[in-house]
Amino acid sequence: MTHNELIQQIRTKKTFLCIGLDPDLKKIPEHLLQTEDPIFEFNKAIIDATHSHCVAYKPNTAFYEAYGIKGWISLEKTIQYLNINYPNHFTIADAKRGDIGNTSAMYAKAFLETLNFDSITVAPYMGSDSVKPFLSLPNKWVIVLGLTSNEGAFDFQFLNTGNKKLFEEVISTSATWGNENNMMYVVGATKAESLKEIRKIIPNHFLLVPGVGAQGGSLEEVCEYGMNENIGLLINSSRGIIYASSKDDFAQVSQLEASKIHESMKKYC
Amino acid sequence: MTHNELIQQIRTKKTFLCIGLDPDLKKIPEHLLQTEDPIFEFNKAIIDATHSHCVAYKPNTAFYEAYGIKGWISLEKTIQYLNINYPNHFTIADAKRGDIGNTSAMYAKAFLETLNFDSITVAPYMGSDSVKPFLSLPNKWVIVLGLTSNEGAFDFQFLNTGNKKLFEEVISTSATWGNENNMMYVVGATKAESLKEIRKIIPNHFLLVPGVGAQGGSLEEVCEYGMNENIGLLINSSRGIIYASSKDDFAQVSQLEASKIHESMKKYC
Repeated sequence: MTHNELIQQIRTKKTFLCIGLDPDLKKIPEHLLQTEDPIFEFNKAIIDATHSHCVAYKPNTAFYEAYGIKGWISLEKTIQYLNINYPNHFTIADAKRGDIGNTSAMYAKAFLETLNFDSITVAPYMGSDSVKPFLSLPNKWVIVLGLTSNEGAFDFQFLNTGNKKLFEEVISTSATWGNENNMMYVVGATKAESLKEIRKIIPNHFLLVPGVGAQGGSLEEVCEYGMNENIGLLINSSRGIIYASSKDDFAQVSQLEASKIHESMKKYC
Repeated sequence: MTHNELIQQIRTKKTFLCIGLDPDLKKIPEHLLQTEDPIFEFNKAIIDATHSHCVAYKPNTAFYEAYGIKGWISLEKTIQYLNINYPNHFTIADAKRGDIGNTSAMYAKAFLETLNFDSITVAPYMGSDSVKPFLSLPNKWVIVLGLTSNEGAFDFQFLNTGNKKLFEEVISTSATWGNENNMMYVVGATKAESLKEIRKIIPNHFLLVPGVGAQGGSLEEVCEYGMNENIGLLINSSRGIIYASSKDDFAQVSQLEASKIHESMKKYC
């Protein structure tokens, strides 16, 4: 998907919601556990119920790998289902990969070619040759971890490196490896006040913002500090939507939760 | 595997070689491509030929994920083969994972429980809660990226953060989250001179050292600067051993290459 196509989807649907598909067999409704592939059935129901309220879906690979081959099959079925039935939704493999050049190239093949995701999240610690192999495929995206939403972000990301914090250095340096048409950044909603500084460095890039909802971030603050003239935000919610109910009505309730966020986003679009 | 058991293996076999199992269908011998699972057959032949010369095997997950479900099956068969036939070899899932706490816990389950590896490599950027979930399982290990062997390491890892370089800060801070019985560090052989400084911070931890061979690092330098009284090193070689020949004799030639490194290690053990 291109930058313009994504903006178009957001303007048309009046939403910049991304839904995280993080299935956990301990949390999904009991009646699904008897099906052949409970994780895929769960995702399918969530996707069918919520697609009109969001522009992106983000499976986190950890929740699939935890179940070995079965989980990997569920992931493959999920992305295929999205690509066939909802080709206008932007898809994110939340994999946080990154390795030496020839190895990152294998990850790019795995997620952007074999599985055919639109994008993949990448950890920046190993530097340029760990990120660049992901940037060589047309209309595919790298989403670099800039400032993450978790408590551990304070361990290293805020360290002073000369006249910049580490996350600012990571963002400004890595932004030179690509451009706003093939790179985005993860910026946690729980650190919304830092968005102002980040927007000075990368005014035009899309930001993928986790942490609204379950982790305590505020949509209003994120929009105030992070929005640009093309919206420039994908706000992710996972648990708050997909586990809103653990009963038979889970899909219906997820639709309701997604619609509430959709409603609150309309005024910005 | 415990710290003492690993030292015992090294002392008994007089080797601290780790072999990287990074199978690439473009590089493995043609006659294997007709088998049902070429990647597993390749790994099995390499393992059977080299096991007496090494104490550890390290599949890099990228090389399996690139082939989707088939690759994941090959990875599962490879670790099962190692666990059943060579239980005294230390196994490393070179996965470079790391995510927010509840998600890292899923990766720990995936690699240390479901697949039953002894250890997993972890990227440090997201901080403590991204690493700690891997430390809660008995006799399992986290191997944190300290100073990597690639060119991109210079982008961020050498940044000055107060009176320390970033990689020194990462190592000294993260070392407080566990101890030398459940943590190791990746330190690239291509930056051997930094090993002296790193040994001042973590004198007793094992270091996993990639970059000897294909990437240009020197065994002698790594031993001079990085060895401690319990050896404290796992030196990895991947391409130099597993792709030493692309013909029918590949396993035999890999054995020869591994035996050369083994020979050069004996004097240190």
